[in-house]
Amino acid sequence: MDTATAREPRQERSRATRRRLLAAAVRCLAEVGWSGSTVAAVAERAGVSRGAAQHHFPTREALFTAAVRYVSEARSLELRRRAADLPQGPARTEAVVELLVDSYVGPEFAAALQLWAAAANDARLRADVLPLEEHVGRESHRLALDLLGVDESASGVREIVQATLDLARGLGLAGLLADDRARRRRIVQRWARALERELAAVR
Amino acid sequence: MDTATAREPRQERSRATRRRLLAAAVRCLAEVGWSGSTVAAVAERAGVSRGAAQHHFPTREALFTAAVRYVSEARSLELRRRAADLPQGPARTEAVVELLVDSYVGPEFAAALQLWAAAANDARLRADVLPLEEHVGRESHRLALDLLGVDESASGVREIVQATLDLARGLGLAGLLADDRARRRRIVQRWARALERELAAVR
Repeated sequence: MDTATAREPRQERSRATRRRLLAAAVRCLAEVGWSGSTVAAVAERAGVSRGAAQHHFPTREALFTAAVRYVSEARSLELRRRAADLPQGPARTEAVVELLVDSYVGPEFAAALQLWAAAANDARLRADVLPLEEHVGRESHRLALDLLGVDESASGVREIVQATLDLARGLGLAGLLADDRARRRRIVQRWARALERELAAVR
Repeated sequence: MDTATAREPRQERSRATRRRLLAAAVRCLAEVGWSGSTVAAVAERAGVSRGAAQHHFPTREALFTAAVRYVSEARSLELRRRAADLPQGPARTEAVVELLVDSYVGPEFAAALQLWAAAANDARLRADVLPLEEHVGRESHRLALDLLGVDESASGVREIVQATLDLARGLGLAGLLADDRARRRRIVQRWARALERELAAVR
């Protein structure tokens, strides 16, 4: 076995450990919040030694920011995959709004929210979370423009698309404590009708 | 001095102590989050003995839920007061949306968010926070209908007004970590234009 092939499985193992840590960190953050989320707690959940966890993520901030980035990127890929099945024609706008809103629900959003809430009171964590939030915001915005098939150079498009993402974030927060699906469904339908009218002029 | 007059200043002192505790609890929650927010920490901030604080609020959950309720009610009164100065005519919708969005910004919203985030992982706290959230939601909805001068029995009005409040909540969350005022202003203007068109049919 030459050096390159010996290195490969080791690198693959290291990547697998990293992914296990990231997935465990998201679950931990969503389930117990920031105060109970430490590198040691995540290492235990992931079945990884504390030393190995610290080798991958020297600080708590680095681990949890990477974890939220990891699920955001996975979510982005998943949305683009699901987008291939979206209808064309008049039903499309509602399907796009539903897809976007769905991405602010579930354990990934719960984890991100715990990180944001903690970052509000922690300057060091905020320094890591802010660039992540900007990155995720830009990605979501680009995805929404693509799926809606509109060009943001047209007047007012950028703002109405951003409003749709802000609405999605607000609905995510509303669904954090209780099952809000039935109400959310009605809001999505209603918003989609309004959005359709707003975008009709630029299509 | 008869018993009734002796009782009155004592009741007034007790109410003042309660208000001091509630105000200190909101600042504490907004500044350090749930994990650092204890009855003892709030008593110290308020300059009240721990025993007196516990007399008013036997549990941590009771204190912080009451504090968020207190600022929500103060906010509601303040909004109704400011509403008297809102313009009539075409500029009104934007002024109303701005007023509603403004109410999801600042330390009161930051405190409420910390409480929601903590309640997501704490069944006992959630049992106190859910009825509060429903109460605040109903109040905001009623206020929005009043200010916009629309009747929710008309088709689609209820949902578009709720969407406006969900958008406001999402904008509040977006503004938690960084100064988002310039972007928020553009979204408010853009959404007000769309909302105006949506409500024109039912006015």
